[in-house]
Amino acid sequence: LKNGRNKYEENTMMSKVIGSGSDVLICTSLVGKTRESLLGELNAVIAREPDVIEWRGDFFAGVATSEDVLETARQISAAASNTAMIFTIRSALEGGQKISLSDRQVIELNAMVCKNTSIEYVDCELRMPHEQIDYLRSVANESGTKIIGSFHDFHGTPDAELMLKKIEEAELAHLDVAKIAVMPHCLEDVLVLLEVTLKAKQTCSIPLVTVSMGTYGAVSRMIGGIFGSSLTFAVGEERSAPGQIPIEDMRCVLNIIKKLR
Amino acid sequence: LKNGRNKYEENTMMSKVIGSGSDVLICTSLVGKTRESLLGELNAVIAREPDVIEWRGDFFAGVATSEDVLETARQISAAASNTAMIFTIRSALEGGQKISLSDRQVIELNAMVCKNTSIEYVDCELRMPHEQIDYLRSVANESGTKIIGSFHDFHGTPDAELMLKKIEEAELAHLDVAKIAVMPHCLEDVLVLLEVTLKAKQTCSIPLVTVSMGTYGAVSRMIGGIFGSSLTFAVGEERSAPGQIPIEDMRCVLNIIKKLR
Repeated sequence: LKNGRNKYEENTMMSKVIGSGSDVLICTSLVGKTRESLLGELNAVIAREPDVIEWRGDFFAGVATSEDVLETARQISAAASNTAMIFTIRSALEGGQKISLSDRQVIELNAMVCKNTSIEYVDCELRMPHEQIDYLRSVANESGTKIIGSFHDFHGTPDAELMLKKIEEAELAHLDVAKIAVMPHCLEDVLVLLEVTLKAKQTCSIPLVTVSMGTYGAVSRMIGGIFGSSLTFAVGEERSAPGQIPIEDMRCVLNIIKKLR
Repeated sequence: LKNGRNKYEENTMMSKVIGSGSDVLICTSLVGKTRESLLGELNAVIAREPDVIEWRGDFFAGVATSEDVLETARQISAAASNTAMIFTIRSALEGGQKISLSDRQVIELNAMVCKNTSIEYVDCELRMPHEQIDYLRSVANESGTKIIGSFHDFHGTPDAELMLKKIEEAELAHLDVAKIAVMPHCLEDVLVLLEVTLKAKQTCSIPLVTVSMGTYGAVSRMIGGIFGSSLTFAVGEERSAPGQIPIEDMRCVLNIIKKLR
């Protein structure tokens, strides 16, 4: 653990916690393939002051070698010491890179990241079997790591009911954050995602991260916080999903929105 | 007429036309009570480079003396030569100042502004009797002035159907722009206004200006253009309606949104 403190202390003393304040956090993703490129990407990104950094492990060439992942995670985490980190293996099913690990191996890798690094958040897709999610939950409880339960649809925007159900699933599985990222085919779909966010905010007790992706959805990344989303993804060095805007532009818009309160 | 050109030439050569391009225009309102204060307000506002300036004649102490209105209009119009102007008498019924003129006198004042000044747009509330609107339309056709048909509800957000009907009324009356400004009681109301804007954009042939007012609605002023609104009101020197943000902030957000295309 960083400086001998536990993660909870780390979070409250240094890094920002998703959903803990009224400010929307800006997250940027690292998508490097090698440790060297990741550390370079990280350096460039830190200068742009995101609140949270997500390491997209599915882009990492060494993802199948757990020691390589853990050592890289430790180095990234040390270099990003003041910034909350999310470790994410996004499956190809939900828009990520194709990797050789099975779902069970992905859960196990997440468990190892919880146990052996000071990374504050791991992402767990809600499509994973219940018992696997429960297992990761117990490991994460032990290590003080938080879990983001996520659902992605890169092909369309499901019915509001399905999206609300996914958010409820994250809550029922005792996860710490519920994330929904969906693709709109029109601006009406963007409004559906915002409506879902508003409704979930009223009924759900855990923080939400909701995104409507692509060009139509880009506006949701800017204003989602008004409707109840606690974190938004912006471009640091490289875009990790369609519709992301640069960190500086996002900061500018969020600061203007903040003045409305 | 300014420099001997007709208003259409003025519009296309110098001033911006509502709904003519893909850019959302920023409008700011003058709310001075005297000619002197208006000209001072105008000078300060022009430096902040709005695309359109609305003169809220209902704030003007001399509103009941048509010669005073016309001379002030001419002076404002001359000083704002490169900026499109809207002349508006907002009734107390729709959120404006109480004035001594009857509805018929307001229509007549608008007609005089059309005939005797180079102001490009006059506002006409859609609640006015059909024959009065038709009369103003014929005068405005003659002078080359455009008419904004407007509907305001400072107390709530009506059903989507009613708002769509109001927009349709503006179109059926052969007006040039349809404007809807309503007050939300919650963020759901803001989404309703955005949905109405989207729907109207698909069915209506004239440019739209839609606003959800107040703190909840402020976001609609920033992103309304994405959903089909062609103009947004921002604060120059003084706010003319609740929820308006400063011109510079609005310009910043609109420039970021422009990059999304």
